[in-house]
Amino acid sequence: MLRSLLALLLTTGAAAAQQVTTGTLDNGMQVVVIEDHRAPVVVHMVWYRTGSADEPAGASGVAHFLEHLMFKATDTLADGELSATVTANGGSDNAFTSYDYTAYFQRVAADRLDLMMQMESDRMNNLRLTEDDIATERQVIIEERNQRTENNPNALAREQILAAQYLNHRYGTPVIGWLHEMQELSRQDALDFYDLYYSPNNAILVVAGDVTPDQVMALAEQYYGRIPAEPHLPERFRPEEPPQRAERRLDYVDPRVGQDYVTRSYLAPERDHGAQETAAALVYLSEILGGSSATSVLGRALTFDSDIAVYAGAGYEGMALDDTTFTITVAPSEGVSLEEAERAMDATLAQFLTDGIDAGQFERIRTQLRASEIYALDNVEGLANRYGAALTQGLTVEDVEAWPDILQAVTPEDVMAAARAVLNRNNAVTAYVMAAPEATPEPMMDGRN
Amino acid sequence: MLRSLLALLLTTGAAAAQQVTTGTLDNGMQVVVIEDHRAPVVVHMVWYRTGSADEPAGASGVAHFLEHLMFKATDTLADGELSATVTANGGSDNAFTSYDYTAYFQRVAADRLDLMMQMESDRMNNLRLTEDDIATERQVIIEERNQRTENNPNALAREQILAAQYLNHRYGTPVIGWLHEMQELSRQDALDFYDLYYSPNNAILVVAGDVTPDQVMALAEQYYGRIPAEPHLPERFRPEEPPQRAERRLDYVDPRVGQDYVTRSYLAPERDHGAQETAAALVYLSEILGGSSATSVLGRALTFDSDIAVYAGAGYEGMALDDTTFTITVAPSEGVSLEEAERAMDATLAQFLTDGIDAGQFERIRTQLRASEIYALDNVEGLANRYGAALTQGLTVEDVEAWPDILQAVTPEDVMAAARAVLNRNNAVTAYVMAAPEATPEPMMDGRN
Repeated sequence: MLRSLLALLLTTGAAAAQQVTTGTLDNGMQVVVIEDHRAPVVVHMVWYRTGSADEPAGASGVAHFLEHLMFKATDTLADGELSATVTANGGSDNAFTSYDYTAYFQRVAADRLDLMMQMESDRMNNLRLTEDDIATERQVIIEERNQRTENNPNALAREQILAAQYLNHRYGTPVIGWLHEMQELSRQDALDFYDLYYSPNNAILVVAGDVTPDQVMALAEQYYGRIPAEPHLPERFRPEEPPQRAERRLDYVDPRVGQDYVTRSYLAPERDHGAQETAAALVYLSEILGGSSATSVLGRALTFDSDIAVYAGAGYEGMALDDTTFTITVAPSEGVSLEEAERAMDATLAQFLTDGIDAGQFERIRTQLRASEIYALDNVEGLANRYGAALTQGLTVEDVEAWPDILQAVTPEDVMAAARAVLNRNNAVTAYVMAAPEATPEPMMDGRN
Repeated sequence: MLRSLLALLLTTGAAAAQQVTTGTLDNGMQVVVIEDHRAPVVVHMVWYRTGSADEPAGASGVAHFLEHLMFKATDTLADGELSATVTANGGSDNAFTSYDYTAYFQRVAADRLDLMMQMESDRMNNLRLTEDDIATERQVIIEERNQRTENNPNALAREQILAAQYLNHRYGTPVIGWLHEMQELSRQDALDFYDLYYSPNNAILVVAGDVTPDQVMALAEQYYGRIPAEPHLPERFRPEEPPQRAERRLDYVDPRVGQDYVTRSYLAPERDHGAQETAAALVYLSEILGGSSATSVLGRALTFDSDIAVYAGAGYEGMALDDTTFTITVAPSEGVSLEEAERAMDATLAQFLTDGIDAGQFERIRTQLRASEIYALDNVEGLANRYGAALTQGLTVEDVEAWPDILQAVTPEDVMAAARAVLNRNNAVTAYVMAAPEATPEPMMDGRN
């Protein structure tokens, strides 16, 4: 079943428009083809609608663990053979895991697409895990956690912040997993996750490059079409946040912190299917408050007009299945305390909520966003990622295509409304990340007063 | 199978020793009989080893919801008939749900035990829930939440504190449930929980009063023995906390707060099977720091020797399956800020860690604990609760019996060691609960500095 939607990605006038075609196999596997005939290469990706936030309680890290194990032997491939074959064919391959998805990809010459599908479809349901694989690869992911998290004070601080941000939702659990749970991950944990979630009706095939939709659909039917749908695939469900009624604050102290900073993370809406407008406004808000240091509201007030901070920025990632975060970070200058930096940050935010948005800044950002949406079309692998991420995070191809126009339609009033809604301290975690505890005022009493 | 352990509860010399006999039915149901022949009454309880912390993610409140639904119709009892029958027989009945257990009990004349077992065993596997029951009772539990939580600022604050206390464990989710999840609880949610957990191999029968073990075991075989064990009962498993690396703080502001206070909750070990010593030391610590206001360390320093606080107390509940909390609460006097109160509290704790424990105070507490353990034996219903709670929270009858001696064996050094381990700010949540935001210092800048 090939739905011939041949959509132009940008209706606002792009230099190079990409043709995007979507289809669905009989077993429920979605197919997205992005044609780009400028070079005889192809990116072949399989995205699963499952990530760390879909893990069972107590088995954190299993989604990422399974991602590693997917490079082990299958009925027909030896341990490591898939990657070796890709390399031998002049290509490269990798995989990644996030809260909402797990994805596998290869970039190869276009005439090797057949071989890629053969191998990728094979490991969708023929993985053969041994206890040796488990023991070995568990050590690998633990070492990965050691390097990326345990040895990185900012990563450790971020874990504690996200755990405090989410009272109920599993975005509060790190993708890599809590160490004590990673150490207990078993073959059965991996297989349970694999058997339930790695199935064509939970997967999206994205092929981008020098291919035609008919050619991709024919190959997809041949290789992925033979795999039966998983009948027990559950409806995707995530516990939602209850009302957050009190700002949380935390001090993360670690002598390895190189530069102290205060960071505040607010719970914020994500891009929702058919309702991306608030997320689009938050993209502007992030740029307005914390984009380039010379012109952003926080950058100008804290690093340019004053010497309070060496850095002031804002961040928002709207692509998520469930509520995401909007963050503001300020790193104070030498001699300025975190408390002073935070007070200055809050005074700047309060002033912004009173003054509103500078019209010139707003138009500059709108133009930049238009340009970056156009430039994004040049990167076919980036586009493939964009579709894979969108379709595993509750959006449709139409949502992806509507996004550039929605971004362009945002008004300053939309941004201010979003700012007033999101900059709610009850939904926030404010963290001081620092090398040593701040000097606290002397106790006011010594036993009596 | 009747194990004839006829244990004396107190080896430290009790006025009235109770005979406690334990047994197990063939289907795995544990039986505890506490003989007390002083009056012709009996307390009949069934405790299930399941509570709110065993709920599936997203279905918070279902354990308590099911507790309500257990009073609906079965194959042989009409809706409400069980309670009506208990009342008609001059008895009283009720039920309660906690994180680790759900329990049902009746207190009646001893010759009605047969009838109680007949009805209680009936609803263990013959419950017949209608959609009407669900709709009605869901409104009841929502109303219960409205009364106990939504209309109670201290309860709301506590929810937010516990959600911040636990980064991974489900003790961070309220027993009553998050409102948005309670509203979605379905008949299937209740039945899934019922079918899996309400089975004899997950239950403990506690009968206390004017009965003999042989009589109880015979009746138990007759009524509960006919129910087959649940073959799919999972091993009890709870996600554990990762290292807590940063103190969390929160301000809960609610105009309905009658008296502002600062409260700090530390993650603390619970009474563990075969290892109750640290928990016993924490019972002392709680009394030493925050027992009676005139003699406790915090009470004396903050309310007696000074006018900083109108209240200073400490709390520790060691009976839990997993890590519990140790809390300290200080309510400042008129004109004293929460910040000042907290600083005074911390100065007092620091001084305590330096000075150690007053020997006279320690001995007074030891004597009080001995007395209260002895007096506890007079309350047969309290004893029944004690065994039921212990056996659903990972302890054994032997642990319960050892507890008074373990309490008496605690030394001041044990308490100081426990204090140093538990009073770790990284494991803590500090909350300001207040009617209005505290006045904050003026911002240090107004755009430039």
